[in-house]
Amino acid sequence: MSNKIITIGREFGSGGREIGLKLALALGIECYDSRLIEMASEDGKVDIERLREVEEKKANSLLYSVYSDYTTIPNGYGLPMNDVLFNLQSKVIMELAKKESCIIIGRCADYVLKDMNDVLNVFIYADNSFKNKRIMDKYDVSEREAASMMKKQDKQRSYYYNFYTDNRWGRKESYDLTLNSSRLGIDKCVSILKDYYER
Amino acid sequence: MSNKIITIGREFGSGGREIGLKLALALGIECYDSRLIEMASEDGKVDIERLREVEEKKANSLLYSVYSDYTTIPNGYGLPMNDVLFNLQSKVIMELAKKESCIIIGRCADYVLKDMNDVLNVFIYADNSFKNKRIMDKYDVSEREAASMMKKQDKQRSYYYNFYTDNRWGRKESYDLTLNSSRLGIDKCVSILKDYYER
Repeated sequence: MSNKIITIGREFGSGGREIGLKLALALGIECYDSRLIEMASEDGKVDIERLREVEEKKANSLLYSVYSDYTTIPNGYGLPMNDVLFNLQSKVIMELAKKESCIIIGRCADYVLKDMNDVLNVFIYADNSFKNKRIMDKYDVSEREAASMMKKQDKQRSYYYNFYTDNRWGRKESYDLTLNSSRLGIDKCVSILKDYYER
Repeated sequence: MSNKIITIGREFGSGGREIGLKLALALGIECYDSRLIEMASEDGKVDIERLREVEEKKANSLLYSVYSDYTTIPNGYGLPMNDVLFNLQSKVIMELAKKESCIIIGRCADYVLKDMNDVLNVFIYADNSFKNKRIMDKYDVSEREAASMMKKQDKQRSYYYNFYTDNRWGRKESYDLTLNSSRLGIDKCVSILKDYYER
């Protein structure tokens, strides 16, 4: 039987990561998110701090052509660090998907795995007030700061996704199903995905 | 225990109605779609043919102010027929939701029932090629005719929904969850909703 993969795209503050983690626990499989960067770093023998700087950010071609933040690793020579990270992470994601059933958060995993069967591509979104409150609680920031973080993060995720894929970030057409976590609640989102997975 | 309602918005050709009917069968509850117009006709004592002409179409205020297709029923005097239908249908939908658990297709039911608990608002969408093929098969029309029907129907549904509600038709933010029927398949959509309902 082939592995079953669930990829989760998510708005900042929507609880997409929490849903992924809870789902993984409920299903007894792994959930990969920022860990992927460590795996990419090990796999590509690239300094993790250099990768972290560009996580889920698209390459800025102007900056990268003027300045010299190009990687010097053998298989990435001449590429902006963002592209190196994208390529390394994509390789890790493909290897994981071949090896085991799992959940992958962000990192254009839906697009990376587009030619595989048994991949469910989910997007989690929520009302602004719900996301705002979650961000305020989690990062201990004011309402205004939370709103600003939300805007910035979603912009970055959107640029990154739209740059590296043929799809549009957050548009329902890019996914198999989209769940409104503020209306359904985090646990209901988990149970919908759990039921789907177990069928 | 309160009734559980599922409302289904859908793109033309996406199979939203089929999903509603199959789900109703699986759950042993009723699915209301074009039947609502008959119920509205009986309830409001308005000729059903006059209602059918304006089904899921928004009022054209210019036409209705120039021409005389106003209803003359006591409680709808001076209203365009579209508004009469919307009001009658909304009343029927609210009565149904109070009376029984059920599925309601289209007719802004999500908005009509926005103040009720236990209402799941779903939107079904699909890739164009999938919708096109379904329309060609169902209505025995050419690919071109199918594409034109799809465009026209979705435009009408969208105008109708955007006119009578505060939300935007087809935008994921207007719904609790959205399902891509071409990627998931009709039966998978049914099972996701069935599992959700039965929890």
